[in-house]
Amino acid sequence: MFHSKITVILRPSILDPQGKAVEHAIHSLGSASVHNVRMGKHIELDIDAATKQEAERVTEEACKKLFANPVMEDYLFTVEERT
Amino acid sequence: MFHSKITVILRPSILDPQGKAVEHAIHSLGSASVHNVRMGKHIELDIDAATKQEAERVTEEACKKLFANPVMEDYLFTVEERT
Repeated sequence: MFHSKITVILRPSILDPQGKAVEHAIHSLGSASVHNVRMGKHIELDIDAATKQEAERVTEEACKKLFANPVMEDYLFTVEERT
Repeated sequence: MFHSKITVILRPSILDPQGKAVEHAIHSLGSASVHNVRMGKHIELDIDAATKQEAERVTEEACKKLFANPVMEDYLFTVEERT
């Protein structure tokens, strides 16, 4: 069995209003040193696959078809084997 | 300047209906080998701090006060220096 950890985040050039709102909230809590907050998604999943290559292919396909909007978001993932 | 990457994810014992819905969507797309999907948040932010310890303290505080629900969620983060 393989375990994938996927991170999906808005591209740097795309404005992130949710991140801006969180930034204001952090400032209200007293941490004025925080800036440039970006919010993204984290996804973990298990894959039954014979090889790591196959697990990576399934993960990549899920990212492209489902998790990431290719126009606005970047994704990266790691796949590790679990016994 | 320091850059923090934070991951917030539901504890393993907590049911994740959003993950379940995504799992069904992946199955509909033809990848029946995927299971145990868990959805979480990924947050990146910059911190103006004198030391890495200070940046870690600010990040930890933001996680505790704002990003994670300590009853249901776990968080982990990395802090790295950026020039």
